[in-house]
Amino acid sequence: MDKTNAAVIGLGSMGFGMAVSLARKGFDVAGTDVNAEAVQRFAAHGRAARSIAEAATGAAILVVVVVNAAQTRTVLFGPEGAANALPKGAVVISSATMSPKDAEALAAEAEARGLLYLDAPISGGAQRAAEGALTVLASGSDAAFAKAQPALDAMAQKLYKLGDKPGIGAAFKMVNQLLAGVHIAAACEAITFAKRLGLDIGKVYEVITAAAGNSWMFENRVPHILEGDYSPKSAVDIFTKDLGIVLDMSRDTKFPTPIAGQAFQMFMMTAAAGMGRDDDASVARLYAQIAGLDLPSSIKSNG
Amino acid sequence: MDKTNAAVIGLGSMGFGMAVSLARKGFDVAGTDVNAEAVQRFAAHGRAARSIAEAATGAAILVVVVVNAAQTRTVLFGPEGAANALPKGAVVISSATMSPKDAEALAAEAEARGLLYLDAPISGGAQRAAEGALTVLASGSDAAFAKAQPALDAMAQKLYKLGDKPGIGAAFKMVNQLLAGVHIAAACEAITFAKRLGLDIGKVYEVITAAAGNSWMFENRVPHILEGDYSPKSAVDIFTKDLGIVLDMSRDTKFPTPIAGQAFQMFMMTAAAGMGRDDDASVARLYAQIAGLDLPSSIKSNG
Repeated sequence: MDKTNAAVIGLGSMGFGMAVSLARKGFDVAGTDVNAEAVQRFAAHGRAARSIAEAATGAAILVVVVVNAAQTRTVLFGPEGAANALPKGAVVISSATMSPKDAEALAAEAEARGLLYLDAPISGGAQRAAEGALTVLASGSDAAFAKAQPALDAMAQKLYKLGDKPGIGAAFKMVNQLLAGVHIAAACEAITFAKRLGLDIGKVYEVITAAAGNSWMFENRVPHILEGDYSPKSAVDIFTKDLGIVLDMSRDTKFPTPIAGQAFQMFMMTAAAGMGRDDDASVARLYAQIAGLDLPSSIKSNG
Repeated sequence: MDKTNAAVIGLGSMGFGMAVSLARKGFDVAGTDVNAEAVQRFAAHGRAARSIAEAATGAAILVVVVVNAAQTRTVLFGPEGAANALPKGAVVISSATMSPKDAEALAAEAEARGLLYLDAPISGGAQRAAEGALTVLASGSDAAFAKAQPALDAMAQKLYKLGDKPGIGAAFKMVNQLLAGVHIAAACEAITFAKRLGLDIGKVYEVITAAAGNSWMFENRVPHILEGDYSPKSAVDIFTKDLGIVLDMSRDTKFPTPIAGQAFQMFMMTAAAGMGRDDDASVARLYAQIAGLDLPSSIKSNG
C-alpha cells in the first residue's frame, strides 16, 4: 500500500487522459470535475471524488487541468478549494494555459500556504494525454520538480525544464499558442483562397504539405476541411481565449503583435457567427460563408 | 551533335543553377542576364549570350526566370524579345512568380505567336536549383508539357502537373507564397515577443520546432535571427512583391485575405525601414527596433 496519492482536477479531454495515465503507472488517483458524467466515467480508473476538497485530501501531487487562470484560482483558493485540503509540502502541477503573470501570482499564493507549485502547461492533444505521451513545458523550483517528477514521468513523453521560476513555462506556452493560432487562421485563409481561385483543394493540401508554405497546423487542420468534419478536436473558443491572453500580454509588456491580433479577429468572427464550440478549422467556414464558397460537407459536420 | 538547344533568361540565384543543371544533363545551353558579371560567370558552363535574341535563336526550350510578370513580358515580347528569335513550336517555361491572370495573358500571347507555353513557377531555393532538385508547380497543354519534359527532368526533383491551362501553376504558387509570407512574419513576431518576455530564444527555437506551433518557415528562418545573419538568402522585397500579388488577386477575385494583408504590412514596414534587400528574417529586426530589444548580432550581419 505504498502507492502515491495523486489528484486530478478537471477531467476534460486532456485531464481525463492524464488521470488515467497516472493510474496506469501505479498512482492512487482521485479525480473530479464539474461535469458529473466525466467523474462517473473516471470511476473505472480511480477514485471518483465528489468535490475538490475530497480529491485533494491526502494527495502528494495535485494536477489542475482546467480552462484558465480564473478556474485554477478557484480550484486552489476558492471557498471549497484544494489548498486547505492538501497536506503541507504537496506539489501543485498547474497545466491550464495562462499568462506568466497569472502563473507567478498563483505560485506565490500556493507557496505562501506551504505548497510547492510547478508551472506546467501541456501540449499534444487528447490522444497523447491518454497515452501518457504529452509534452510538458515546465518551470519552478527544484523542490517542485523533484516532488512532481514521478507524475511528470507518468504523463509526459517529453519534459522541458525551462527555468526555476513559475511563469517561464506559461510564457513558452503562449509563444507556441501565438504561432499555432496564426497558423490555423492562415491555413483557413489559404485553403479558401485556393477554393476561390478554382483549385482542387485536395491537391493544394498535397502540394503545400511538401512545400515551404507548410506548417504543423496546416498539415493537421486542413484535413478537417477536406472531410467537412467540424466536430471539435479543439474548439474555436480555445483560440479566442489563448490569442486573447497573447493580446493581454502584448498590452502589458508594450509589445505589438499585429499578426496575432488579426488572427484573433478571425477566431472572434468565427465565434460570433455561432461556431465557437466547433472545431477551430471552422475559421475556413467563416471565409467560405463570407465569400459564398462551397466547402466539402460531411454527415459528421456540426454546422 | 544531337544536343537540344536550350536558353535560360535570368541568371540570378535560381536561374543560374537551373542553367547549370540543364548543361550538366547534356543540353546545349545559352544563358543571359542584365548583370554582365553573371553572364561571364556562366561562360564556364555554357554559351554566354550577349542578348536575349542571341540566347533564344535556335532554342527549342526557353526558360524565363526573372523577377515578375512585367520582366517576363519584356523578355518575351519586348523590342529585343525572345518571341521573334525562337523557332516556331519552341516551348517557353515561365518560372517567375506572378498572378494567374498574368500567366494566362502571357500564355495566350505566346500561343498566338506559334509558341508553346508552360506556366511553371518553382520552389526550393538556390541550392536545389543548382542540384537540379527543384519543385516545379506546372500547368499547360499536353504539347507544352511534352516539349518541356526533358528540361523539367533536368531541373526538377519533383514535378507537379497541376492542370492543362496556364494560370493554375501560378495560382498554386501564390497560395504557397501567402502561407510562406504569413509564416515568416509570424515567426519574427513570435521570436521577438519571446525575447520581450525574457525567454532564452535559442530554447524557444528548440521547443517550438518540436511543438504544434512549428512551420517550415519558422524552422528555416529563425536560425538567421539566432545567428544575427541577415545577409539575404531570400530578401524582404521578395515578399513585399509576392504578398502584393496575393493582395491584388484578393481584390480581383473579391476574396478577403486579412492575415496576408497584415503580414504584407510588416514586410512593407521592414522595407520602409531600409531593410528591403536584407534577408526576410529582418522582419524580426523591425519588431526589435520598435520595442528596443537586443537581438543577437554577428559580423555577418548587414544591418
